[in-house]
Amino acid sequence: MPTQSKRFVHMTDSNRWLLPEGIDEALPPLAERLETCRRRILDLYHGWGYELVMPPFVEYLESLLTGTGHGLDLQTFKLTDQLNGRLMGVRADMTPQVARIDAHRLKREGVSRLCYVGTVLHTRPDGFAGSRSLLQLGAELYGHAGLASDVEILRLMLETLAVCEVDTPCVDLGHVGIFRSLAADAALDPEQETRLFDLLQRKALPEIRACLAQFPITADHRRRLGVLADLNGDPDTLDRARDELAGADDAVMIALDALEHLARAVRASHPHVTLHVDLAELRGYHYHTGLVFAAYLPGNGQEVARGGRYDDIGRVFGRARPATGFSADLKTLVRLSRCPERAAPGGILAPADPDPALIHAIVDLRRRGERVIQGLDRQDNDAVALGCDRVLVKTNNQWTVVDA
Amino acid sequence: MPTQSKRFVHMTDSNRWLLPEGIDEALPPLAERLETCRRRILDLYHGWGYELVMPPFVEYLESLLTGTGHGLDLQTFKLTDQLNGRLMGVRADMTPQVARIDAHRLKREGVSRLCYVGTVLHTRPDGFAGSRSLLQLGAELYGHAGLASDVEILRLMLETLAVCEVDTPCVDLGHVGIFRSLAADAALDPEQETRLFDLLQRKALPEIRACLAQFPITADHRRRLGVLADLNGDPDTLDRARDELAGADDAVMIALDALEHLARAVRASHPHVTLHVDLAELRGYHYHTGLVFAAYLPGNGQEVARGGRYDDIGRVFGRARPATGFSADLKTLVRLSRCPERAAPGGILAPADPDPALIHAIVDLRRRGERVIQGLDRQDNDAVALGCDRVLVKTNNQWTVVDA
Repeated sequence: MPTQSKRFVHMTDSNRWLLPEGIDEALPPLAERLETCRRRILDLYHGWGYELVMPPFVEYLESLLTGTGHGLDLQTFKLTDQLNGRLMGVRADMTPQVARIDAHRLKREGVSRLCYVGTVLHTRPDGFAGSRSLLQLGAELYGHAGLASDVEILRLMLETLAVCEVDTPCVDLGHVGIFRSLAADAALDPEQETRLFDLLQRKALPEIRACLAQFPITADHRRRLGVLADLNGDPDTLDRARDELAGADDAVMIALDALEHLARAVRASHPHVTLHVDLAELRGYHYHTGLVFAAYLPGNGQEVARGGRYDDIGRVFGRARPATGFSADLKTLVRLSRCPERAAPGGILAPADPDPALIHAIVDLRRRGERVIQGLDRQDNDAVALGCDRVLVKTNNQWTVVDA
Repeated sequence: MPTQSKRFVHMTDSNRWLLPEGIDEALPPLAERLETCRRRILDLYHGWGYELVMPPFVEYLESLLTGTGHGLDLQTFKLTDQLNGRLMGVRADMTPQVARIDAHRLKREGVSRLCYVGTVLHTRPDGFAGSRSLLQLGAELYGHAGLASDVEILRLMLETLAVCEVDTPCVDLGHVGIFRSLAADAALDPEQETRLFDLLQRKALPEIRACLAQFPITADHRRRLGVLADLNGDPDTLDRARDELAGADDAVMIALDALEHLARAVRASHPHVTLHVDLAELRGYHYHTGLVFAAYLPGNGQEVARGGRYDDIGRVFGRARPATGFSADLKTLVRLSRCPERAAPGGILAPADPDPALIHAIVDLRRRGERVIQGLDRQDNDAVALGCDRVLVKTNNQWTVVDA
């Protein structure tokens, strides 16, 4: 019975050291590509005035999870602090950490532009290619409530993809304030709101209709909530939304105007990006408060970056501040990058010779940015195996570089 | 009773978000200095032919801890994998991970030069300034058993400190094979060996004498083991050691020759480094197998980097390979760096003006490496508060950069 025996397979040397599911490691040359893209991205953020912060890998749970919702709690590995018995969590998202830093550590009056890159762990595989170990990167802008900061953040997200040489993406635009206003206006209770929210996420049209029919709300409220799942498409969808949602709370019309503004701004700066509006796009609903956006690769469906406004997340940390930002997974960006894999890294092999003139030549070449490997013994002279295309040889009492 | 009331102090907003003891985070401008030194170090390793690897933050415990000894087990945070109930650990040291990668993943025939940088967590504060969250970096050389690889690794460790602009260090040299040979030769049992090992670590001379007097060993063995704690000082100590340890196993004399060779090599390449030989220096004894070394700052006593030979650690991963390497904590290196803190980062403030010519000017300046912040609204024009020393202004219908 092969299926049975498979379940009891004995661990051999070759499978004993397998990594846990969804936990991966980067070997050469992938690790070097990750490092290259990491530097390009951090240089980009520096050029836009975003300051680097490095939040800790673990924190007390109340810091990590306050105000973030149940989903993040489930995704967070828990650890006991042996020094005092308190419960710590391994970060599953860095954005709440950066919000804490803005509110509690930096305490600035004006605008803060912050960026970060670091590993986050999830208890279960999700999103980004089933990984449980993302190399999360992102940028956050605190202290500005206007559309200008949403535009800046969305443009910076697109530039992030560009420096990683990812194909021009499609961008989904949404606004969680629209569903939130319609639900509040219809006086849905939290349970009703959650039920409808789940159905909208799945765009389950018949179920949405059946669900709404049960709610004790007016026909107008039912019609407006019911049409949300249908309001998606190119930016002209916004005109249709204005008609279909006419009569709704002012906040809904303000949200539609905000979407229009964002769409125009992206078309101006990134005309090749395909825009898609989706008023039932509510991912991050428990976290975001306004405009939300996500970048996809055309014909792929894979989400490569997402972001949006999440005002007042810092309230629990002592300061309510407007906030907008985005994040992505560096490993996903590098996997989708068109940036070709470098063949051999190139370099110069020096022989195992204690001649001080050789040592000087090596120091000098390295100072000029060359990769120089010195052989460890006389047999260690296979330049190609060491990825070297040139060698140092002594001719006329001088050390010179020649092709391997 | 103030001491009593202190124990029950109510958590206020200002202390609720404190980080756990020994867990820190890097804000601007420290984070940027860490990034600068990180790049210098990785560029150095690239220049020496070391390939970057990025081992995972968590692994199954048997991978993380096999062959590493009890100390690392105590320092390792444990997590349950919710997918299968197996126990995982958060890495407390990256060297065993890199050894696994060399033995089990890369499986190369020849020499492998690998380097890494990443966060490791410890359950309790130790070493490196009481931190529980180190930014460990290091380089490892696999597949070469001769002294040439020990010399290369020690020199690379010294160059690591140099690129971080840390003061010229003192280097302690030792060789765990000397104590190991003397103990084996005297046929000490494991309990006796551990007891003597602990006393040697503390250089507790009267206790060492009393302990040795109890062991049923010959007078020669007692004399040689007893003199170890006294054999430390400048490299001339090695001559004294040859006399004092005369008659010991050949392995002891070979170890002394190795120390002599290493000392000469460092003097040749790094004449300003002060060398100190200590034959009772056995830190990392459960892990290392030959030469060991550590760098200290003079007059400080703080260890800033350490390394040594640890042959055959990869045996459990399917391949026994000679190995030598070193590691350090990037946060410690940056704290001790003479590299001055940059004042303002500098940069250009652009006004909140939708003029396409301005957008082009900003894109162009950023492309040339400038840091350009665009104001978010008309009031957002305080260049100094945003760390900018210049501004973009429109004169004669042209955008030009002028001093702020």
